[in-house]
Amino acid sequence: MPDAAAPASPSARTRVNRYRWLAHYDRQTIYAILDAMPVAHVGYVHDGNPIVTPTLQWREGDRVYWHGAAHGRMMKATHDAEVCLTVSILDGLVLARAAYNFNINHRSVMVFGRPEAVTDPAEKTRLLKRFVDGYVPGQWERLRPVTDQEIKATAILSLPLTEASAKLRAGPPEDGDEDYAFPVWAGVLPIRLAVGAPEPDPRNLPDVEMPASLTAFSIG
Amino acid sequence: MPDAAAPASPSARTRVNRYRWLAHYDRQTIYAILDAMPVAHVGYVHDGNPIVTPTLQWREGDRVYWHGAAHGRMMKATHDAEVCLTVSILDGLVLARAAYNFNINHRSVMVFGRPEAVTDPAEKTRLLKRFVDGYVPGQWERLRPVTDQEIKATAILSLPLTEASAKLRAGPPEDGDEDYAFPVWAGVLPIRLAVGAPEPDPRNLPDVEMPASLTAFSIG
Repeated sequence: MPDAAAPASPSARTRVNRYRWLAHYDRQTIYAILDAMPVAHVGYVHDGNPIVTPTLQWREGDRVYWHGAAHGRMMKATHDAEVCLTVSILDGLVLARAAYNFNINHRSVMVFGRPEAVTDPAEKTRLLKRFVDGYVPGQWERLRPVTDQEIKATAILSLPLTEASAKLRAGPPEDGDEDYAFPVWAGVLPIRLAVGAPEPDPRNLPDVEMPASLTAFSIG
Repeated sequence: MPDAAAPASPSARTRVNRYRWLAHYDRQTIYAILDAMPVAHVGYVHDGNPIVTPTLQWREGDRVYWHGAAHGRMMKATHDAEVCLTVSILDGLVLARAAYNFNINHRSVMVFGRPEAVTDPAEKTRLLKRFVDGYVPGQWERLRPVTDQEIKATAILSLPLTEASAKLRAGPPEDGDEDYAFPVWAGVLPIRLAVGAPEPDPRNLPDVEMPASLTAFSIG
């Protein structure tokens, strides 16, 4: 794993060519965004056409992982083919004085590369445990133990974070100098992901206890 | 505009080929998801490689629109080229009794096609008004009036919703019959987008009033 403080060398593809001043390439920024938002949109090319599939990613060290049905279209089409995995978090609406400066506060990461499949069943099991425990610490050990068939039916792909970039926007609107005299309210409407009270499955056994760590779950 | 009750004829591409039981194709479902979530992930192919860019979409009738800098990479690369526009909303974590049945509650839409550019300045202005007023009704008329140069610098693309599909998952976990006897808590952790209190721009003029409709804004 490379030094976390070192920049992930931006290639021509990852170099953000619009709004360049919003781009950040340092690993800590990229890690923080990936860790805050498990939902990723994975883009790949299928018969020459782009497809964007939402999926759940998780990060370990300098790699990002996702899983799916071993026989699914996405897992087959993305194995060893170029993909773009994008994670984005909406932080707010930015209401400026001019429609042209309407914006959103956001954090996003794009990762490019050719995913590799994890094939060793023990490594797959270890990674799936990390995936599940990433949501609810200790959950893997509480669950009905995983079977060999389930591990076999689950494909896991991973990408190194070598070609990755982050883009962020925060703070108040930015209007043209002359527009600050225009008499209209401007500001930010903050948006965040909120977690509600856990809803127990009506089919739960009467004596099961909710994991205490569930109430600590946060996202975004 | 086709009858809203008629299904958007699914093509081979849009037919959801995994988890088919989650797929919905009726227009009202597709419209409701697009209207609830402006953030879209647009996938396109650039030099043979997939790129997924987050952007804001809005819907009018049976078309979806997005805008960007006229000279930006995304707007140029997606004009008259195949794209996949995906909108997804995370509704909750589904904690099952088996790791294999871990899931998320979600709503998503995928739209395929070749975007067309809106070129008429009057039509672009009308569409941008709809975009802005979609967030805060009446806002367009309050803002510093748009200039011809701003309209020129803004590209607008649109896709018909003819090749579109929706996918939904809601409700409690689904475990294998034999696993319901396993003594572990199962249930759903609901997640939603929450809107915070508006944050006025510190550079607001002293007498500007916040639009009352801002407090009614909701998303997701």
